Amino acid sequence: MSKTVASVITIGDELLIGQTIDTNSAWIGKQLNALGIDLRRRVAVGDDKKAITDALNEELANAQLVIVTGGLGPTADDITKPLLLEYFGGKMVVNERVLAHVKDLFTKRNRPFLERNMKQAEVPETCMVLFNRMGTAPGMWFERDGRVVISLPGVPFEMISIMLEEALPRIKERFTGDAIVHLSVITAGEGESFVAEKIQDLEEALPAHIKLAYLPGAGMVKLRLTGHGTDEATLTDEMRPHQMAIANRLEDIVISLTDEPMEAILHRWFTSHGKTLALAESCTGGYMAHLLTQVSGSSKYFRGGIVVYQTDVKTEVLGVNKDIVDANGVVSEATAMAMAQQATTVLKADYGFGITGLLEPPTGDDKGTGVAWMAVAGPEGKTVSRRYVFHYDRHRNKEMAASMGLLMLYKFVTDGTRPWRD
Amino acid sequence: MSKTVASVITIGDELLIGQTIDTNSAWIGKQLNALGIDLRRRVAVGDDKKAITDALNEELANAQLVIVTGGLGPTADDITKPLLLEYFGGKMVVNERVLAHVKDLFTKRNRPFLERNMKQAEVPETCMVLFNRMGTAPGMWFERDGRVVISLPGVPFEMISIMLEEALPRIKERFTGDAIVHLSVITAGEGESFVAEKIQDLEEALPAHIKLAYLPGAGMVKLRLTGHGTDEATLTDEMRPHQMAIANRLEDIVISLTDEPMEAILHRWFTSHGKTLALAESCTGGYMAHLLTQVSGSSKYFRGGIVVYQTDVKTEVLGVNKDIVDANGVVSEATAMAMAQQATTVLKADYGFGITGLLEPPTGDDKGTGVAWMAVAGPEGKTVSRRYVFHYDRHRNKEMAASMGLLMLYKFVTDGTRPWRD
Repeated sequence: MSKTVASVITIGDELLIGQTIDTNSAWIGKQLNALGIDLRRRVAVGDDKKAITDALNEELANAQLVIVTGGLGPTADDITKPLLLEYFGGKMVVNERVLAHVKDLFTKRNRPFLERNMKQAEVPETCMVLFNRMGTAPGMWFERDGRVVISLPGVPFEMISIMLEEALPRIKERFTGDAIVHLSVITAGEGESFVAEKIQDLEEALPAHIKLAYLPGAGMVKLRLTGHGTDEATLTDEMRPHQMAIANRLEDIVISLTDEPMEAILHRWFTSHGKTLALAESCTGGYMAHLLTQVSGSSKYFRGGIVVYQTDVKTEVLGVNKDIVDANGVVSEATAMAMAQQATTVLKADYGFGITGLLEPPTGDDKGTGVAWMAVAGPEGKTVSRRYVFHYDRHRNKEMAASMGLLMLYKFVTDGTRPWRD
Repeated sequence: MSKTVASVITIGDELLIGQTIDTNSAWIGKQLNALGIDLRRRVAVGDDKKAITDALNEELANAQLVIVTGGLGPTADDITKPLLLEYFGGKMVVNERVLAHVKDLFTKRNRPFLERNMKQAEVPETCMVLFNRMGTAPGMWFERDGRVVISLPGVPFEMISIMLEEALPRIKERFTGDAIVHLSVITAGEGESFVAEKIQDLEEALPAHIKLAYLPGAGMVKLRLTGHGTDEATLTDEMRPHQMAIANRLEDIVISLTDEPMEAILHRWFTSHGKTLALAESCTGGYMAHLLTQVSGSSKYFRGGIVVYQTDVKTEVLGVNKDIVDANGVVSEATAMAMAQQATTVLKADYGFGITGLLEPPTGDDKGTGVAWMAVAGPEGKTVSRRYVFHYDRHRNKEMAASMGLLMLYKFVTDGTRPWRD
C-alpha cells in the first residue's frame, strides 16, 4: 500500500516575526504519525494572499493531505477563509448549526453578538464543516482531485478540539497509512558521541526499515528507533529485541524505555513505592513543583513545596538554621542540605529536595552567578549534595537546574536499581 | 532599497513526528525582523537527503538568505554537513580552531575524545566557519550567486550563541533591510471581536504601510501595529499617534503598551511601588511562582510562595484555619481568601495571592473538576475573590488559571489607575 504523504501549512505573521512559537505543527505531526501518515513538510507563511496560495499549490503537488492552520479569526488580518473560497470556487453560505453555536457562545459569555461574528458562521459552499465546539471559527474540509485540504483555526485548544472530534476520525477513514512504530531508550549522564560509540555495532546491524535517531537534551540523550512496516504488532515484535539490546548495552545510564519526561518517571516510582516528596526551591522559583504537578494524580505523592525566594524566608518559613546560612552563605552546600532536610520536616515527607543558586549567566568574577547547590534528603537522615555551574541565560539555566535536580532525585531514590526493567 | 527576503529551513524527523517543538524558528524570526529582513517562509523537513535538497533549491529561488538549522551532530542520522558539501562542491578540511576547541571541551568534561568527534572539526572548504563556543558542531556560511546559506546546529542554545556572536553581525553587514517598527497595545478582559468593533474606524484609517494584527491569548488580546519605512525614528513618530489613539479608545481594558508578559508588568508595578508579594498555590502547583521568577531581579519584590499540594499542608504549613476548610471545602471562596491572607502573614508580604481548585477537565457531574477559586489580599485586610471554571485539559487549565490569577492581581494592585500612561 502506498504511503499517504501530508503537509502542514501554518499561517500568521506572528509566526514569522517570532511573536508566537508554533506548537500546533508538532501536535498535528504526532497525531498523523500515530496514524502512519508521513508528514513530509511543514511550511509557515505570513498573512499574505500570494504566499498562502503559493504554499497551497506547492504542498498539494506532493501531498494527498494538507492541513492549514490560522487566519480564521473575525478581524481584517484573517484572510484564510475568503482565500479558500476563491481557491475552491463557489460562494459563501451561512451554516445554521455554526450560527446557532456562535450566538449561544456570545449569550453564555454575556457579550453582544456583532455583524462580524455573523461572518464566523459563513463557510464556502464547497466545504464540509468541521464543528468547533471550543470557539467561533469552524474548521473546513475541502476536496479536489482526490486530495484533501483541511483548514483549522490557529488557537491551539480550538485546533486540537476540532482535530480530535471531527478531523482525525475522518482522516483515519479516508487515508490508510503504513504501520509506524517508535521505541525509545532514554539515557542520562553521558553525551551523544559516547552513547553512539558504545552502540555503534548495534546501530549498524539494524535492518533498513528500522532507523535510529539521537535527541540530545538537558543532561539526557533520547534514542528513538523508528520502524516502518505493514503490521504494527509484527513490527513491534521485530523491533523490541533491538531496543532491549541497546538498553542492555547502555545499562548504567538508561532511565526509561518510554519517551516520557522525568516527572512521569518520578511519579511512577513514588506512587508505586508509597513514598512522599517535598521541595524547597530558591533559584528555580517553583518551576520544579510546576513540572511535578504537570502529571495527573501527582497529589498522591507530592506534598508540596516552599519557594524561598528571599533569604529570610529560608530561615523563618522553612526553618533553616540562621547560623548555617550566616556561616556558609545562602548559596552553599550546607544551606542546600539544610533546605532538603527542612523540606522533609516542615512538609512531613519521606524525601526532600533543596536547591539554592544564582541563575543569572556567569560573569567570570567572584559573584557566583551560574552556581547552584542542590541536595536530596531521605529516610534516616541520609543526604547527598551536588554543585553545578550553568553557563547559559537565566531561563535556560533554570531549565537546566530543574532537569539536573529531577535527575539527581531519581538517582537518589532508585539507588542503583533499574526500575525500567520492571 | 529592495527588501532582503529570508527563509528558514529546520531539519529533523523529530520536528515532523511531533517529538520536538520548534522554538528555533521563532527566535530566528525575531532577530531577522529586528534587522528589517523579511522572513517570508519557514520550512521543516526530515533527515532526508532529497527533502533537504528540494527545500534548499526552492527557498534559494526566492530568498537571498537561507538559514538552515539541525542535522549537524556526530551521529549517523545527521546528514546536513555532507549534503552541504555536495551542494556547494569542494572537499572536507579540518578546521584547526574548531579541532582545538572540541578537544578542549572533551578534556574539560573529562570525556574520551573519539574519532567521530574529530569529524566535528571537519568543514567543507567552500564555507566560512561560524565558531560555536557552546558546543562541538561549528556553524557554516556558504555563498553562491550572491545568495547566502547559513547552517547552524539544532540545539537551541548553541544555535543562539552562534547567531548572536558570529552570524547576526555578518548578516547585518551584508544585508540591509527596511526599517520595521512594531508597536503594541495589550488588552485584557474583552474578546477579539469586541475590540475590533470598537476600533474599526481607527483601523480603517491606517495608511497602507501600517498593518494591524490581533493576537488573542488567555484572557488577553494583543494588538500589534507593524509599519514599514526607510527610517526607524521617522516611522516610529508616525506610528505613535495611531497606537495612542487605539489605546485611548480602549482605555479601560488596556494593560500595557509593550508586548510583554503579565509577570513583567507586575514586576514593574511592585518594584516601583516598593511593595512585596507572596503566593499560596494549590492547583497551579508552583507555576505562578515560576512565571514571576522568570523576570530578572524578581527577588526584589517576590518574597516566595507555598505550594500547598496536599490538604493538610494548607492548614499545617500555611496555617489556614482547619475549621474554614472543613466547613467550606478545600476548593471554596473561604479557603482561597484564607490562603491569600495567610500568604501575607506567613511570608510577611504586603500582598498575598491564593488559589485552590481542581484542574482536571470538567466532567459535568458534581465533582467540581475545572473549578478554581482565587483571592488577593492586600493592606488593611482588603481581600477580593473570584471563581473560574476552566473547560480544557489539565495543562491548558493550569495556564489559564495562572493567567487569570496574574490578571486579577494586576487589577487589584492597580485599582483602576492606568500605569501604562506613565
